[in-house]
Amino acid sequence: MIFELYRNRVNNYLNTLLTRQSALNEYMRYSVLAGGKRFRPILTYTTASLFDVELRQVDACAAAVELVHIYSLIHDDLPAMDDDDMRHNQPSSHKAFGEAQAILVGDGLQALAFEVLAGAKNIIPITRIKLLNLLASSAFDMADGQSIDLSVVSKNVDVDFLNKLHLKKTGALLGCSVKFGALLKPQIDKKDIDILSSFSEKIGLAYQIQDDVLDVLGSDQSLGKRQNSDLKKGKPTYPSLIGIEESKKAYKGLYGQGIEELSGLSVNATALIDLTNKIVRRDY
Amino acid sequence: MIFELYRNRVNNYLNTLLTRQSALNEYMRYSVLAGGKRFRPILTYTTASLFDVELRQVDACAAAVELVHIYSLIHDDLPAMDDDDMRHNQPSSHKAFGEAQAILVGDGLQALAFEVLAGAKNIIPITRIKLLNLLASSAFDMADGQSIDLSVVSKNVDVDFLNKLHLKKTGALLGCSVKFGALLKPQIDKKDIDILSSFSEKIGLAYQIQDDVLDVLGSDQSLGKRQNSDLKKGKPTYPSLIGIEESKKAYKGLYGQGIEELSGLSVNATALIDLTNKIVRRDY
Repeated sequence: MIFELYRNRVNNYLNTLLTRQSALNEYMRYSVLAGGKRFRPILTYTTASLFDVELRQVDACAAAVELVHIYSLIHDDLPAMDDDDMRHNQPSSHKAFGEAQAILVGDGLQALAFEVLAGAKNIIPITRIKLLNLLASSAFDMADGQSIDLSVVSKNVDVDFLNKLHLKKTGALLGCSVKFGALLKPQIDKKDIDILSSFSEKIGLAYQIQDDVLDVLGSDQSLGKRQNSDLKKGKPTYPSLIGIEESKKAYKGLYGQGIEELSGLSVNATALIDLTNKIVRRDY
Repeated sequence: MIFELYRNRVNNYLNTLLTRQSALNEYMRYSVLAGGKRFRPILTYTTASLFDVELRQVDACAAAVELVHIYSLIHDDLPAMDDDDMRHNQPSSHKAFGEAQAILVGDGLQALAFEVLAGAKNIIPITRIKLLNLLASSAFDMADGQSIDLSVVSKNVDVDFLNKLHLKKTGALLGCSVKFGALLKPQIDKKDIDILSSFSEKIGLAYQIQDDVLDVLGSDQSLGKRQNSDLKKGKPTYPSLIGIEESKKAYKGLYGQGIEELSGLSVNATALIDLTNKIVRRDY
């Protein structure tokens, strides 16, 4: 299966990035190589494949978005943040090597993401600059979204507010992952980028609602972390606002809209549609 | 005074970068605009001036190194790390708006540093890539250095070990600040870069030893933070290993060596020598 190939590819690539001689490097390996769906890198490889971009050119982009994602999980799991003690079926980073080192692992991974991308010599400089700019603004929005998320615990908010929050917290980096695949093609159509942006917004929101539904319905084992953790923390979510059934309808509808929009692309989008359909069916 | 001009210039520029509509932006303003010596940006402007680089081209570099420096201070001050409750004569970020938001402010500032530099349109792409690469590897080394620093609390280490630690924790970003000024000149001599690298290593180490001496001798008011905080934490430092007087000799000697090396540059280094001499005399 092609998605499994992408997953293995990014895992191998990530493994080659973490070879320095330091304790921090070992902590990074623990957190980065623990598994995970690698959904963001797979999105990048898949989108790039639509535009016939060579896989070798995609590696640094795929690794960079995953490194930023993993740093955000490590910081989100900290006691001062979401206080989650399990991640990917193993103790969270701060449980494994203490809060201070976990903070630094996150900090170092963010730096490493930019280093990997800035050093990707097989991507022409003008494109690399665009990618670095997008990664930076997406990472900023992600932090901003997490800041808003923490500020609304136990507060009444409406669906519009949740949408805006999710677009930053989850949508920004997902959008980056998708657009990376297209920006790697130097002569990409502006219209294709716009369609992929809109597609990303739909599936970014859908992905977060689906996560929140799975947090209620999933098992600890399949999720790799504690189930029902949002509810216990008093976090407003789609399920808490409109119920499970309506939330399911909402995310399925959004995935469907995203898929429809892909028909406007100048290239055959079958691979990205297949991936999206696979995500709709996920149970973790 | 030219250094005061650089300081005001980077302060004004930083002010223009923090204008988004969000709580995180306000927290960032609190931490970034609280003052501080702006030593790193001043180093960048000063080095750039040796090579006749326009000030306008230096702004993004100067801001980026300062943003990375400030993010590192915010994270270092956290209870899980150095647990310092005062910084720049005001409550540390986590005291002002809580640990979770302080972590995110640091995360967001690191992202912003890369965004500012990647978006600096008045720097040609090939140079911007070099700068981004250096900023990323320096930020990584800084986190690695802090990780080592925390791991040796209450342990016996020797001066060689301290030197290696300081070169990462303090030297990496100082070296980045100096080299930024030179890399902005597209046709810079490799020999000049090598001399500036060696100069940075000397003054990076000197700066850290001097910080540790001031931590013992300075007042809370002049330091803007609690005095004697290293000793209380059981951190090995030059003063704790070889005493105050020998430490003073060590840092003055290193600054002197750094200044001597500048005589090998292909350009007149008077401004950078003046800056270094000013730093030798600092009391905070």
